[in-house]
Amino acid sequence: MYILKKTTLAELKRVQSTIKKELASEKIIQEIYEYIFSAEGKKTRALLCLLSSKSSDIKPNNRINLASIIELLHTATLVHDDVVDESERRRGTRSVNQVWTNSYSVLMGDFIYSKAFILMVKLGIPSILDELAKATNDIARGEIIQLELFEKGQLIELKDLLKVSYLKTGRLFEASAKTGAMLACRSDDEIKTFGLLGKALGIAFQIQDDILDYEALKLDIGKPALKDFKEGKITFPLYFAIQQANTKDKNFIMSQLGQSKISKNNQNKIYKLIQNRKTQYEINTLLDRYTKETLKHLEKLKHHACYNEMLELITFSKIRKI
Amino acid sequence: MYILKKTTLAELKRVQSTIKKELASEKIIQEIYEYIFSAEGKKTRALLCLLSSKSSDIKPNNRINLASIIELLHTATLVHDDVVDESERRRGTRSVNQVWTNSYSVLMGDFIYSKAFILMVKLGIPSILDELAKATNDIARGEIIQLELFEKGQLIELKDLLKVSYLKTGRLFEASAKTGAMLACRSDDEIKTFGLLGKALGIAFQIQDDILDYEALKLDIGKPALKDFKEGKITFPLYFAIQQANTKDKNFIMSQLGQSKISKNNQNKIYKLIQNRKTQYEINTLLDRYTKETLKHLEKLKHHACYNEMLELITFSKIRKI
Repeated sequence: MYILKKTTLAELKRVQSTIKKELASEKIIQEIYEYIFSAEGKKTRALLCLLSSKSSDIKPNNRINLASIIELLHTATLVHDDVVDESERRRGTRSVNQVWTNSYSVLMGDFIYSKAFILMVKLGIPSILDELAKATNDIARGEIIQLELFEKGQLIELKDLLKVSYLKTGRLFEASAKTGAMLACRSDDEIKTFGLLGKALGIAFQIQDDILDYEALKLDIGKPALKDFKEGKITFPLYFAIQQANTKDKNFIMSQLGQSKISKNNQNKIYKLIQNRKTQYEINTLLDRYTKETLKHLEKLKHHACYNEMLELITFSKIRKI
Repeated sequence: MYILKKTTLAELKRVQSTIKKELASEKIIQEIYEYIFSAEGKKTRALLCLLSSKSSDIKPNNRINLASIIELLHTATLVHDDVVDESERRRGTRSVNQVWTNSYSVLMGDFIYSKAFILMVKLGIPSILDELAKATNDIARGEIIQLELFEKGQLIELKDLLKVSYLKTGRLFEASAKTGAMLACRSDDEIKTFGLLGKALGIAFQIQDDILDYEALKLDIGKPALKDFKEGKITFPLYFAIQQANTKDKNFIMSQLGQSKISKNNQNKIYKLIQNRKTQYEINTLLDRYTKETLKHLEKLKHHACYNEMLELITFSKIRKI
């Protein structure tokens, strides 16, 4: 995965154990909680926060705690998203709504959200609380907008997709970097730079995520293929493919979009439409645009201890296959 | 409803308008938000908070804001509960999951939760943030415990029902009174007393709520009858009825519990079993116990501006039919 310093890898491990330490007094809650966190995610947001808060002046414990809070918030949104999307799998294992029920997912999401807020209050930095409460609100906003966008079957514009990508993904990346910088008591200007870097990185991350939904058809990356497509979501690659497609192909796409079962033959046809030269050009240009923006902001942070690892994270996010 | 001072009624109105003022920039979110808050609830928790914070020393705006935050938190739990319970109606109107879908309910609940946290951060009192974050976590805990209790079909004990009633209802009543007292900068001892009063009042409120689920069969109170029963929930009245029933009646109850349709004849039979003299004695004794505990704590607050109205709230909660 990422090529990180040993100290950073050790910190990411401490994030995982900090999260797992949050015990519940009831067996059922503990059981679901452990199930959720036994499947380890990439912890990209936690890593972004750890890098942004790198500083010799602050207590290392606080950095681990903030990164853990962000990981908890992110996981709570995933648990709720699985209900919204009726997902069957999450992080390579069955999702909570499958092993238990939707009801448990809704309530465990609330449990984890509020656990994160308890830890935030304990951290005791008002500006961080404010940023994370607002980010949580924006994520919900983004999800609702996305829901309406695809239910209405209305004409989707690139600006809608960018807005949703920012709110549901970029926003928490932004908050991770910003709050990390806040914790390290950086200047307002620097906090802003970290925030903008996080925002652009999050959108780039989402674009790559959308690409992988189709690439998973050909790659053995342990990710279910066409998940977004089967949920009826028009993501960046599909948006560009539709732009390029002739009427017949467009009708074919729309006839398959949102179907839970798609024949091998039709899957190949969809893949081919995504692989269209012009479509690939458009999607790669978009991904490049956000990666370049990320790097532009990183240039301002050359003197920071996080520089090399941040560069690694940005590069990895663009080429990642997981 | 309650006999309250004109000033208090005006404050409750301001709570409603403060909540409604929280605009969202997206039409769909605004629409659902307005729908949720167009059906006014009793605002018992907001009232409890307003009374507990009565003091000439603090900014009235902060009291209204805190009460609004509590009402937002409560409403968020209701929106999520309607998904968990698959409810069709809420506050006399169709629930969000009926008008829109479960997905919208999950996300709107998150939207309202985080909105409440944003406002809490703005209020800027760490002890209040801490109490409300913990209360939110406990409510989720209570709901999960309740879910498991009734799914397992295990033997339910009175202590389980009391624990669930405390967590899912008493806990936010406790937090409403406690944070109100915190806002008014009362002494630690007084904050504790307000908290204990709120806790006991919340449990009494829940007991009366459970009673009304059966009373609604005979009263025209605009509340759907046997909602809990049809959801398979053993609440206080049914718990005592089962204790009193012979094997035949017990089997009858268990055969009907959780059924979505119950014949008029069987409804009458269930009502009669709840009306059993010993059952009524037990349920009323329990309600009395918590009401008396509430009054015991209120006695310590005789010199407070809130005394008379608090007494009114306690009395009303016991005899209320809504």
